[in-house]
Amino acid sequence: MGTEPGSRNSSPFRLGVLISGSGTNLGSIIDKLHRGPQGIEVAVVISDRPQAYGLKRARKAGIPAVVISPQDFAGRGEHDLAIAAELERRGVELVVLAGYMRVVTPALLERFPKRVINLHPALLPAFPGGSGIEDSLAYGVRITGVTVHFVDEGTDTGPIILQEAVDIAYNDTVESLAARIHEVEHRLLPQAIELITAGRVSFDKDNPRRVLVE
Amino acid sequence: MGTEPGSRNSSPFRLGVLISGSGTNLGSIIDKLHRGPQGIEVAVVISDRPQAYGLKRARKAGIPAVVISPQDFAGRGEHDLAIAAELERRGVELVVLAGYMRVVTPALLERFPKRVINLHPALLPAFPGGSGIEDSLAYGVRITGVTVHFVDEGTDTGPIILQEAVDIAYNDTVESLAARIHEVEHRLLPQAIELITAGRVSFDKDNPRRVLVE
Repeated sequence: MGTEPGSRNSSPFRLGVLISGSGTNLGSIIDKLHRGPQGIEVAVVISDRPQAYGLKRARKAGIPAVVISPQDFAGRGEHDLAIAAELERRGVELVVLAGYMRVVTPALLERFPKRVINLHPALLPAFPGGSGIEDSLAYGVRITGVTVHFVDEGTDTGPIILQEAVDIAYNDTVESLAARIHEVEHRLLPQAIELITAGRVSFDKDNPRRVLVE
Repeated sequence: MGTEPGSRNSSPFRLGVLISGSGTNLGSIIDKLHRGPQGIEVAVVISDRPQAYGLKRARKAGIPAVVISPQDFAGRGEHDLAIAAELERRGVELVVLAGYMRVVTPALLERFPKRVINLHPALLPAFPGGSGIEDSLAYGVRITGVTVHFVDEGTDTGPIILQEAVDIAYNDTVESLAARIHEVEHRLLPQAIELITAGRVSFDKDNPRRVLVE
């Protein structure tokens, strides 16, 4: 990935986390990774919404928490440029979308090439978009899951890092399925971050869509 | 499903199996179900290709094997009507597409409503069409699988009966992945047939896309 893995003996690997809401996935990153033995530090949490509870989680953990609100900017590109500037100012090496409900534009992606990852509550490419859990139940699949992937300019189309399957039960509701999906998310996202920061994630030379994990 | 389950004490439940090639899935149906304790009989095997090896498998097992070739008919509808007539003549209650490489038209589906099932080498709705294994590898998913579903007028869009996940390894080739997928197919298709013939498969009243298995 072009960056040395962090360790206790060098400066920590710096994450930036983007959120829009309660920040339960941010919570799992803080609990499992922040200033732990893996040499990872959440350098900044950015929310597009001032009322996002995740901002409180960040501050409680002593992490700088910043609101960058889209209505303060002329367009999506300008908003993303401001986010990118804040991430750069904090020395962020990897950007994690953790329940961030906005589409990320090239303005941000070009500043962090192959350095933005996202979590999706379905086995992509099935059920992309904002309602993966609802859509998978309505379709009637027997198996769904969780995907962590690099973000590209499409909607949930980027190269896949990790996936884990979740069985759907006949009596599942959106709530019961979401609970099991979130459990997997809280494990899979920190795992993907740890693999990347440890330098164990690379791209297949013959097919850059295929991500290799050592 | 509106049909009484077969048993040794009543007349057997009659399957029709459509094939195009070697018929390894037909082989698993014959081995696991044909004239076994489940009260199921393969009443006829129909191939669209005269050279399909599956025809020999059928004849070896004493099952009538028939070639109905598309070039003998003016169009796809006429071809499917001839297949439907043969299936009806043999008293078939459930039609199984087992490596049948043609799209089934309403001409056949209307004669066997919710009575045609298909096997697909991916976790639908991901990777529909004729190259599910190749497409899933090229996309770079970490998890694929096998789907058994009822056939509707779309391509691999019908209600899903069973799915099973298959992990993709970093060093998988089309051949190595196909071998593991086929293993699952040979288990999942007979299992779905057995569930249907036992009357254990129904549709959710609120959402007919959701298939319930007791």
